Amino acid sequence: MTWKPSRIVTLLTDFGQQDAYVGVMKGVLYSHAAELRAVVDLTHDIEPQDVHAAAFQLMHAWRWFPEGTVHVAVVDPGVGSERAVLMARDEGHVFLAPDNGLLGPVLSADAEVRALDVERFGLPERSRTFHGRDVFAPAAAAIAQGLDPSETGPPTELTARASLPAARRQDDGWAGEVVLVDRFGNLISNVPADAIAGDPASWTVRIRGRSLPVRSAYAEGGPGELLALADSFGRLEVAQRDGNAAAALVCGRGEPLTLGRTR
Amino acid sequence: MTWKPSRIVTLLTDFGQQDAYVGVMKGVLYSHAAELRAVVDLTHDIEPQDVHAAAFQLMHAWRWFPEGTVHVAVVDPGVGSERAVLMARDEGHVFLAPDNGLLGPVLSADAEVRALDVERFGLPERSRTFHGRDVFAPAAAAIAQGLDPSETGPPTELTARASLPAARRQDDGWAGEVVLVDRFGNLISNVPADAIAGDPASWTVRIRGRSLPVRSAYAEGGPGELLALADSFGRLEVAQRDGNAAAALVCGRGEPLTLGRTR
Amino acid sequence: MTWKPSRIVTLLTDFGQQDAYVGVMKGVLYSHAAELRAVVDLTHDIEPQDVHAAAFQLMHAWRWFPEGTVHVAVVDPGVGSERAVLMARDEGHVFLAPDNGLLGPVLSADAEVRALDVERFGLPERSRTFHGRDVFAPAAAAIAQGLDPSETGPPTELTARASLPAARRQDDGWAGEVVLVDRFGNLISNVPADAIAGDPASWTVRIRGRSLPVRSAYAEGGPGELLALADSFGRLEVAQRDGNAAAALVCGRGEPLTLGRTR
Repeated sequence: MTWKPSRIVTLLTDFGQQDAYVGVMKGVLYSHAAELRAVVDLTHDIEPQDVHAAAFQLMHAWRWFPEGTVHVAVVDPGVGSERAVLMARDEGHVFLAPDNGLLGPVLSADAEVRALDVERFGLPERSRTFHGRDVFAPAAAAIAQGLDPSETGPPTELTARASLPAARRQDDGWAGEVVLVDRFGNLISNVPADAIAGDPASWTVRIRGRSLPVRSAYAEGGPGELLALADSFGRLEVAQRDGNAAAALVCGRGEPLTLGRTR
Repeated sequence: MTWKPSRIVTLLTDFGQQDAYVGVMKGVLYSHAAELRAVVDLTHDIEPQDVHAAAFQLMHAWRWFPEGTVHVAVVDPGVGSERAVLMARDEGHVFLAPDNGLLGPVLSADAEVRALDVERFGLPERSRTFHGRDVFAPAAAAIAQGLDPSETGPPTELTARASLPAARRQDDGWAGEVVLVDRFGNLISNVPADAIAGDPASWTVRIRGRSLPVRSAYAEGGPGELLALADSFGRLEVAQRDGNAAAALVCGRGEPLTLGRTR
Repeated sequence: MTWKPSRIVTLLTDFGQQDAYVGVMKGVLYSHAAELRAVVDLTHDIEPQDVHAAAFQLMHAWRWFPEGTVHVAVVDPGVGSERAVLMARDEGHVFLAPDNGLLGPVLSADAEVRALDVERFGLPERSRTFHGRDVFAPAAAAIAQGLDPSETGPPTELTARASLPAARRQDDGWAGEVVLVDRFGNLISNVPADAIAGDPASWTVRIRGRSLPVRSAYAEGGPGELLALADSFGRLEVAQRDGNAAAALVCGRGEPLTLGRTR
C-alpha cells in the first residue's frame, strides 16, 4: 500500500473553543507540515472525555474526506498515563487516537494498527497534560507530509474498544435506543435505516409511550408533527417537523425505542 | 460574463458546531475541488430554521470576499421536499441556497438565477435530510473549480422572498425596529445609518421609553452610557459603552425604535 | 531583520461566532492577500472586552506557530477613539492589536513596536465600530503578503500594559491565584510550574480550605481526586481527575492558592 497524502488533517476533540488549545494544535501542524493543504474541524464540542460520542461522530464523518486524509481524535482521559497512541490505516485514511476504545467502532477488521513511536514523533519536550499539541499534532504533520504510516511504530492491537449500544432485531422489527441528540433536537438511534423496508407507512416507531409515523423526509410531516425517518447517518431518527424532538418528548441519549409494523 | 473563481467557498448554516455536519460538508468540498483555496465559516449558529437571520447575515457579509467566491447558505426547513435549490450569480459572486426566501434580501434585481440541476450536480446517492452534504457541497465544489454558473440549470425565479421588516420615514426622522442582537448585546436596527445627517447631537433615538444620544463611536459615550450610532452594517445601532444594551434595556429583536430630532 | 512571512494569520477576538464578524474579517484577509496560506482561529470566545484574558491566551499560543506568522488580536473597548493600533515584531512574529494593554504581557523588552499608519493600511472607508474588518484585516494581509513590518508606521511605545496578577515567592513556596478556568474546569494559576522542584509528593497545594496533592499527570490521581500538577501552559494547575475542578471547588478566576511543602 502506497501512502498518498491528501495533505488534509481533521481534528475531533473535547477541547471546546473558548481556549486556544485547538489553535495551538494547528500552529504545530503548520509548523511541521510545510505543504499542509487544510486543517478541518469535525467538532471540538464533544462532552469532556465522552469517548463514545467521539467515536460516533468520527465513524460517520471520515469517509466524506479524500483518501489520504489524516484524522486526529483527541478525547483522552488517560493523557499522561502509559496508554499508547494509536496510528491506524484503513481504506486509505489514517487515524491517530489514544488507545482508549475511541477507534473501536471506527475501524474495520482489516485496519493496520500501530503503536506510535512517541519518542520519535512527539515534540522533544512534552507535557503530560496536552498530547494533542505535543504528540498528536507533530505526528499528524509528519504523516500528512508523506511519512509512510507503516513507519510510525510497531504493529499492535487495540486494547480497548468502545462499543456503541447495539440495536436488536425483534419479531418483525427492531429495538434500539437514542445514541445522539443533535443541535436540532433530532434523536439519532442505533437502528439501521435499511430496517425500514418497503412502504414507510407500514412502519411505526414507539418512543416515550408515543407511536410515531415513519416518513421519507422532515417536510412530509404536518406542522409540528413528531415523526421518524431514515437519516443522513444511515440511522433511524426521530424528529419534529420545524421543531425539537428532544424537547417535545423530554428525552435524550439512552432513551429506548422500537420500530415495528403499523397495526 | 466570464466566471473567474476565487476558489473560496463560504458556509452559512444553522447546523451548529456540536456535531460534525459542517466538517462533513468541508470533506465533500475538498473531495470534489482539488484546487480549493479555503472554506470560510460565516456562522453556523443561526437559530434552527431562522431564514430571516440567515438572510441578514449573508447580505452584510458577502461583499467583503473576493469576486469569484461561492457562498453556500443552508437554512432549509424544506429539505427533502420539492423546493428547488437556487444558483444565483450577482456582481461576480455565486450563491447557493434553498428556494425558501433566504436569497430575497441578498440579491439585486439584476441577479442571474437558476434552478440547480440536482441530478447532475448532487451526489449519486442522496439523503433526504442533509442536502448540505449531498447537494450543496458538491455543486459548490464544481463551481469553485471553474464550472460556469450558467451551466448549473435552467433559468428560474425566486418563488419566495424573505422580507426583512422595513423602516419607515417619518416627519423629520425614521421609525424602525431591532433586526439583530449581536454577541455584545448591540441592537442593530433596520434604520439606515445615513439617516443620521449632519451633527449627530441633533438626533435622538427613542427605545423602551428611553431617549438616547447619538454618538460617532462607542468610546464617545460615558462609562455605561446607552447610546446610538452608525454601525459597521450601515445601520443605526443602539449600544451600551462597555456593556450590553440588550440586557440593559431588556429587549431584543422586533423592539420598535425611532430616530428623531433632538428637542 | 528580514521579514519572511509564513503567510499564516491568527485571529483572537471577543466577537463570538454567532455573527459573521469573524467571517467578514477573513473575507477582507483573502481579498487583500492573494497568497495567504491559512487563517487560524485562536479563539473568539474571550468575554467581551476582557483584555487580560486575551493577553493570557495570546501569550501562551503564539510561539507554537511558524516564524513569520501575523497574530491579530482584537479585543477593543476603545474602538473608534484615538487609541493607536500597534504593530509589534518580536522573535520573528508580528502582532497587531489595539494599544490598550493587550500586548503588555505578550512582548519581550526587545520587541519593535510601531503605531500603524491607519490612513495608509486601513480600508479607504472605515467604520468607527469595526476596525477588525476595516483596519486590522487589511494591515495583516499586507504584512502576511510580505510588507516589511518596519514600514507600517513610526516607532512608538505601549501606552498601557495589562498586567496579569503576579505570584509571590514565600518561605519555601508560592502564593498565587487562578488566572484562567478552561473548558474542562481546570484552574490554571499564575504560579510557575518549575516551582515544583524535586519530588512532587513533597509539595501540597492549598485552595478553598483544601489541601491537594501534586501529581505528574491527571491519570495519576484516583477517580475523582482533586490534584495539582504542572500543566501545558507551564503553570501550576488544579484539576479533578475525570471531573471539573472549578465546579467541585466552587471557585473561579481570582481564587487564591498556595504551593508549599507537604507537612
